[in-house]
Amino acid sequence: MASKTFYAIIAGAGSGTGRASAIRFAKAYPVVLLARRPESYNDIVSEINSSGGRAIGITADATDQAALDSAFQTISQTLPGSKLAAAIYNVNGGFTRKPFLDLKLEELDASLDAAPRGFFAFAQKTLPMLLESVPDSLYPPTLIITGATASVRGSAYFGGFAAGKFALRALGQSLAREFHPKGVHVAHAIIDGGIDTPWGKDLVMNNGVEDGKIKPEQIAEDYWHLHIQHRSGFTHEIDTRPFVEKF
Amino acid sequence: MASKTFYAIIAGAGSGTGRASAIRFAKAYPVVLLARRPESYNDIVSEINSSGGRAIGITADATDQAALDSAFQTISQTLPGSKLAAAIYNVNGGFTRKPFLDLKLEELDASLDAAPRGFFAFAQKTLPMLLESVPDSLYPPTLIITGATASVRGSAYFGGFAAGKFALRALGQSLAREFHPKGVHVAHAIIDGGIDTPWGKDLVMNNGVEDGKIKPEQIAEDYWHLHIQHRSGFTHEIDTRPFVEKF
Amino acid sequence: MASKTFYAIIAGAGSGTGRASAIRFAKAYPVVLLARRPESYNDIVSEINSSGGRAIGITADATDQAALDSAFQTISQTLPGSKLAAAIYNVNGGFTRKPFLDLKLEELDASLDAAPRGFFAFAQKTLPMLLESVPDSLYPPTLIITGATASVRGSAYFGGFAAGKFALRALGQSLAREFHPKGVHVAHAIIDGGIDTPWGKDLVMNNGVEDGKIKPEQIAEDYWHLHIQHRSGFTHEIDTRPFVEKF
Amino acid sequence: MASKTFYAIIAGAGSGTGRASAIRFAKAYPVVLLARRPESYNDIVSEINSSGGRAIGITADATDQAALDSAFQTISQTLPGSKLAAAIYNVNGGFTRKPFLDLKLEELDASLDAAPRGFFAFAQKTLPMLLESVPDSLYPPTLIITGATASVRGSAYFGGFAAGKFALRALGQSLAREFHPKGVHVAHAIIDGGIDTPWGKDLVMNNGVEDGKIKPEQIAEDYWHLHIQHRSGFTHEIDTRPFVEKF
Repeated sequence: MASKTFYAIIAGAGSGTGRASAIRFAKAYPVVLLARRPESYNDIVSEINSSGGRAIGITADATDQAALDSAFQTISQTLPGSKLAAAIYNVNGGFTRKPFLDLKLEELDASLDAAPRGFFAFAQKTLPMLLESVPDSLYPPTLIITGATASVRGSAYFGGFAAGKFALRALGQSLAREFHPKGVHVAHAIIDGGIDTPWGKDLVMNNGVEDGKIKPEQIAEDYWHLHIQHRSGFTHEIDTRPFVEKF
Repeated sequence: MASKTFYAIIAGAGSGTGRASAIRFAKAYPVVLLARRPESYNDIVSEINSSGGRAIGITADATDQAALDSAFQTISQTLPGSKLAAAIYNVNGGFTRKPFLDLKLEELDASLDAAPRGFFAFAQKTLPMLLESVPDSLYPPTLIITGATASVRGSAYFGGFAAGKFALRALGQSLAREFHPKGVHVAHAIIDGGIDTPWGKDLVMNNGVEDGKIKPEQIAEDYWHLHIQHRSGFTHEIDTRPFVEKF
Repeated sequence: MASKTFYAIIAGAGSGTGRASAIRFAKAYPVVLLARRPESYNDIVSEINSSGGRAIGITADATDQAALDSAFQTISQTLPGSKLAAAIYNVNGGFTRKPFLDLKLEELDASLDAAPRGFFAFAQKTLPMLLESVPDSLYPPTLIITGATASVRGSAYFGGFAAGKFALRALGQSLAREFHPKGVHVAHAIIDGGIDTPWGKDLVMNNGVEDGKIKPEQIAEDYWHLHIQHRSGFTHEIDTRPFVEKF
Repeated sequence: MASKTFYAIIAGAGSGTGRASAIRFAKAYPVVLLARRPESYNDIVSEINSSGGRAIGITADATDQAALDSAFQTISQTLPGSKLAAAIYNVNGGFTRKPFLDLKLEELDASLDAAPRGFFAFAQKTLPMLLESVPDSLYPPTLIITGATASVRGSAYFGGFAAGKFALRALGQSLAREFHPKGVHVAHAIIDGGIDTPWGKDLVMNNGVEDGKIKPEQIAEDYWHLHIQHRSGFTHEIDTRPFVEKF
């Protein structure tokens, strides 16, 4: 059990991965859920709080520096003296699948906003706090980034989305190389498959079989495992995909 | 000898690679040089025109859609009826090398502007023209992208620059997969070393030896070789580095 | 707690990773340790058996088909009716670091014997057993391969060693693609750093700091985590390195 | 025109790529063709010799050290005083496509023999000669390796073949890092598609279209281009595929 004086934060808490990560990390820490709309976190916050954990939902665009500043002010008032143990960047956005000549600059920008630009703001805000936690946290303070197939593959029609995800991976790699020696663990997860969420069933093929989409609880266990790794053996990158997924 | 009814365009003509590519492609085609300042292309345009070739310099920010529209209007007036054989995206910008926590969002944005956003504008403008050239060009119409070490490696302190270059590579990969089957060749060059230019001597280590930096003429030959490849054997990606470069 | 009717096998039990994996998997399963010399497993077998677990040491060259046949006959007599839950290929061998023109064919062969050829024999023996375990094992039956930096990078002077490790990775990738849809999890770990073992302290640089080499217990936890992943979210490849390791 | 005191050698001259490379390099150098059977090179040797070039066929298993020793003795007698400008390793063998549990160790071995073990012998023989040529060859002495899709991807059912090709790539990478600084250029080509040869039409899908398989003449031009690169800008790896190839 990690100290109660540490907390975790999940940006992009409205997704399946965000929710499952919040539940998993809430077993050890108070968790802060950031989402743009309260509907995205309200029920999960209730669920955690009513089952013995501690969760705080904050309405904020995690890609916006001013909104993040405000969110962390709220956190410092709500969890006074608490330090950051883990930060998960799980913001989605900018997904498009269309012929390149039909793609609009605004669509590319939405991908860049959600991925490198948003993560830039989040990382600049959380890394100083994670550094502060290095001396006395139970596990190495951790910054985890949710990637996708498009993080390592620019498929036809996915160029705009891949541009953002590749850029996000670049930043994660660079931060791992800079901050690992300082004791902060930076990890990037290539989620290579559809996520099994109630609202995702029609959007992503289930590969036609049971367990054909990734259970977000498995990703949350992966993230927790990354968090508790000893600093002598940090994993920077993992891939995760359903057993039936082609790759 | 390619038909005189085709031309090539180089965006980012002010760099060593841009200039050398202009000279190389001018052996076969009229060449259009785009740069933000006339000083960047004036002497090279003169050199080409005075030695039997044809070169046109246009002052334009190749990353700006409106500026590109205007530039191509100028081209259609100056080279009426001429079609596009090759387009080279060689725009630099957004280079930074600094601790992440000192990096500003504007610096990340400069990298994204020069790389994915600028290339997006350039590719959206040139790909329809390259598609039109497929039926009757001597060589497959070609779109070439200049990458860097940071296209495949997010080094410490290079995160902002790498974000742009990774994203640019993602777009190039996606376009290759979409446009190769339509007959347009999309290639990405990982320039993994310093360029040997008069003005670069102080900026980039020469590896301490003669030929320790890449001669831009060699890159220009690589680009020409990519251009003349038969469609049965397109190369999408090459790396290029000095013989003494560590990799 | 997994059923006592399942067991795990570790080939290459004499190394730090092999020993730590045996101890970790022994918390859930009887474990079989294969090594070429009894000295490699004797004390670890004693330690597990005296602390409430069950361990069996078998002297066998895990890269030899006949020796493996014999070992598995011994296992079926010693653990009658028990099925295979996890198999770890952790065989070292063929490490060299020398100028290519000084390398002998026998040294390349030693690397190929320890990596693709040895793993081939081990995988052909264990995969049919792992397939049989799919219907009733608690966790997806798992085949884990220990790789190295040289699995993804052919450094100067490491060509012979890298040849074996690259080939091993190729086999692992291919098996993941073939056996994941059948329910067997195949994972490859890129161990990118020195292992912190008593006998390794002089062989591999410690990066000059505490925790500068990977604790084998961390790798063992990674392997256990891979083993218990749900089939909806298999990880095929992870990297692991000390926080101070350059990469 | 390179000096007549230099020659090129192609191992695996019986394939489409080998033949086309012989013809291409024969424009500049006498060429030596190695193949296991004279039928593989007889007509191409005649063709080159009757059209103004110089070609020598030698029956030898290029993967056998003694056979290579003998072949190079023949060469030194036939081309006295001539030095080696380029060596191309284009040996095929060990191709299989079958379920892993049906694969035999001999089939894996055939792949390892044709790829890392054969190349090892060829490289150990040719690299000292290439090093000798550095001071006075027109172009940097070059060692070129023919790879395949399986060099970078372990597909299901292709594990044995991929093991050899991954290992071959590892050696090539290592040699590039060791020998580039000495002035010898080592390049690896990922031939990602079927080759358009008369005898290959039934073996490999043509992607259903004209030019759906790679013309070996294009690969030969790529190899020549690699050979003539200036040492300030060596390419280590290129990919080549038909315009319609999925990747």
